[in-house]
Amino acid sequence: MRTLADVMPERTSTTSPGKQPDGPPDADPLGWLAAAARQRSEAGLHRVLRPRAPRPRPGDTPGDAPGNAALPAQGSLQPWTDGDLLLDLAGNDYLGLARHPAVIEGGIAALRAFGAGSTGSRLVSGTTTLHGDLEAALAEHLGFASALVFSSGYAANLAMITALTGPGDLVVSDEHNHASLVDACRLSRADVVVTPHADVDAVDKALTTGTWRRAFVLSDSVFSADGDLAPLAALHGVVRRHGAVLLVDEAHGLGVVGDGGRGALAAAGLAGQPDVIATVTLSKSLGSQGGAVLGPAALRDHLIDTARTFIFDTGLAPACAGSALAALRLLTERPQLPEQVRRRAHEIAAATGAPEPAGAVVSVVLGDPERAVGVAAACREAGVAVGCFRPPTVPAGTSRLRVAARADLTDADVARAVGVITGSIARFPER
Amino acid sequence: MRTLADVMPERTSTTSPGKQPDGPPDADPLGWLAAAARQRSEAGLHRVLRPRAPRPRPGDTPGDAPGNAALPAQGSLQPWTDGDLLLDLAGNDYLGLARHPAVIEGGIAALRAFGAGSTGSRLVSGTTTLHGDLEAALAEHLGFASALVFSSGYAANLAMITALTGPGDLVVSDEHNHASLVDACRLSRADVVVTPHADVDAVDKALTTGTWRRAFVLSDSVFSADGDLAPLAALHGVVRRHGAVLLVDEAHGLGVVGDGGRGALAAAGLAGQPDVIATVTLSKSLGSQGGAVLGPAALRDHLIDTARTFIFDTGLAPACAGSALAALRLLTERPQLPEQVRRRAHEIAAATGAPEPAGAVVSVVLGDPERAVGVAAACREAGVAVGCFRPPTVPAGTSRLRVAARADLTDADVARAVGVITGSIARFPER
Repeated sequence: MRTLADVMPERTSTTSPGKQPDGPPDADPLGWLAAAARQRSEAGLHRVLRPRAPRPRPGDTPGDAPGNAALPAQGSLQPWTDGDLLLDLAGNDYLGLARHPAVIEGGIAALRAFGAGSTGSRLVSGTTTLHGDLEAALAEHLGFASALVFSSGYAANLAMITALTGPGDLVVSDEHNHASLVDACRLSRADVVVTPHADVDAVDKALTTGTWRRAFVLSDSVFSADGDLAPLAALHGVVRRHGAVLLVDEAHGLGVVGDGGRGALAAAGLAGQPDVIATVTLSKSLGSQGGAVLGPAALRDHLIDTARTFIFDTGLAPACAGSALAALRLLTERPQLPEQVRRRAHEIAAATGAPEPAGAVVSVVLGDPERAVGVAAACREAGVAVGCFRPPTVPAGTSRLRVAARADLTDADVARAVGVITGSIARFPER
Repeated sequence: MRTLADVMPERTSTTSPGKQPDGPPDADPLGWLAAAARQRSEAGLHRVLRPRAPRPRPGDTPGDAPGNAALPAQGSLQPWTDGDLLLDLAGNDYLGLARHPAVIEGGIAALRAFGAGSTGSRLVSGTTTLHGDLEAALAEHLGFASALVFSSGYAANLAMITALTGPGDLVVSDEHNHASLVDACRLSRADVVVTPHADVDAVDKALTTGTWRRAFVLSDSVFSADGDLAPLAALHGVVRRHGAVLLVDEAHGLGVVGDGGRGALAAAGLAGQPDVIATVTLSKSLGSQGGAVLGPAALRDHLIDTARTFIFDTGLAPACAGSALAALRLLTERPQLPEQVRRRAHEIAAATGAPEPAGAVVSVVLGDPERAVGVAAACREAGVAVGCFRPPTVPAGTSRLRVAARADLTDADVARAVGVITGSIARFPER
């Protein structure tokens, strides 16, 4: 078991001499940024943002014209500013709903009814009837008594943990948990114990040996980088035995895992239990933006009154709430969508030798960042966009392709993706 | 001078006995939430969310029909679910742009071109050409070399501070700074010194007596609750003398303060200086959602590579970027808008006896939370929605009305607002 400091590397490399107590003041106090940039570049850790281009209107290009056999149907191709039209396996739009007409129309109707912004904190002017409708639908779908919506999943995670925990409390956190959960632990003032990945015995030991007023066990349900599933039933058994609370981030579970995409907690029979709290994002399977915390009604009241990222943040924009609600309704009407994305992920993993995925994410570990960058670039040249994860997103030595399946991929899309990925890996042998 | 702990009160009140080391596990580990709710309720600190209702389409009600003299023009009235049609002085839509047709259309065009969500981290699939256009326009308008957009102002503030600071650094933070800046300080691992509000000598002393590798002075430009202006020129003088960096949150300055609403830093001649960094929100004067960090180009590169709330968050939704960009273009075309909102704020402050505001926010301090709640409710009954700020948003004993002027208020709106506010205060005499 490790402390939080072990998984929170220092962020700022220093190359500047800093303050000279008796010398003149630094004439260029941000000059160190250039040297830090050189260090990142030499380590293969420099990033360049590649913008997506506007999608052509129907009829503008053959790619969007129905019946054009030369290009995949169902909107799989995405234009980028360098002129490429790529098969997009990089994003988290797992159900392909971000561009669904009903989801677009949900956003447009919200813009017209409520304006572009929510105009204030949810406590003041930033709550609309749409926020309430979305919260009711999320609670119903995921099987919890209540939901509270935030402007991002990041903000929802900060809220859940900082509003529930304080000095004297214990948070037991999986070492693979998302950065937002790690930051939330740092803000919490609780004692934090980081346990080895998916190690239920270590969680049990932390709860047994620690002294605490209240204890919380914190885990992603589906882990973003590796795509594997947390041992939720076993974790809950330990939690229940100790009188603790299980906190689960369903960012990559909602819409993908379980019957109807109700998430991994529902699949394990844990949704709505009195000692279980969940967070979700609205920006992955629901194709929009935002996040939510789900749990007992008393939790929602508590967050409204005390959560800093609720009180001091502008409410989620109406367009995002409207699109997310439309996507959730589509998901409810089409319970086959989660099965489709899981099947596509299985096909891609089987063909690329990756571990069997629990949800949509296929993780192809390649080792050093240069190899991962080279393979990802080769895939892109061949028309397939995949994610490339390097430190600090993943631990050193595990740079990888992150291939996200989507429910709207065709057989031809999958065959093309697999051919391009395996061919590109072969061009960059392991060193 | 105080430490950060002095301004970060514990969040979780405890009424539960907690773990009984040798007893049975707690059968209801969230049972303490109900007791905590009772405590908040008894202290007058319980909140109820009041949703805004959809705005009627033109022609649906007299309120939106042009030429109806009985109701104010220019969309000042806002429907709420309880059937009220209120003059909205509670939100932060300072220029009245959240419902401007061009801002709505900017969001709709973005939804159609790019989809409802950005689909991933800005590093992967979450950057669109629209994000780049918005960043260029923000940098140009505010007078900085570069800008980087985040999903909220909260996230932008966390990024600015955590990506620039680390162990051995010093952050000198005004005691009235926004909660997001306080949370960012807590995440930063730097030494944090909290100085009395607007006390330049205290900042100088902190920089003189502290030991540090790099030092940063952190302030809002216009403070959200009091509406006053930070002494930016004096702060920058101290910063320059020590070789430190000035970090300024322009959330309430953009669109309101300075020539063309370019913000308080531009008004002080400090925008674009090599030792000055700014953040803004897109959710106030720009009527949308999101935030940005502005500074030298090397800062933008540094944030892209290292800022956790950039790397690990989904990119801002296209609709929000599109609406913010449309609003920024309107602001650029109409430099009289900031003058209009300042004039309206001045009129409201003068008539209610509030301190002269620096921007849009008029702060009417009333004392204990019950009085503030009573006056705000009376205003609402009389048709005027105002903000009511209580602890923990403001310090104990300074509960208040927060009245936000808007550029689109008419003379009749202001007269009505002033009459309702002063009349309501008279009904609740100071105890």
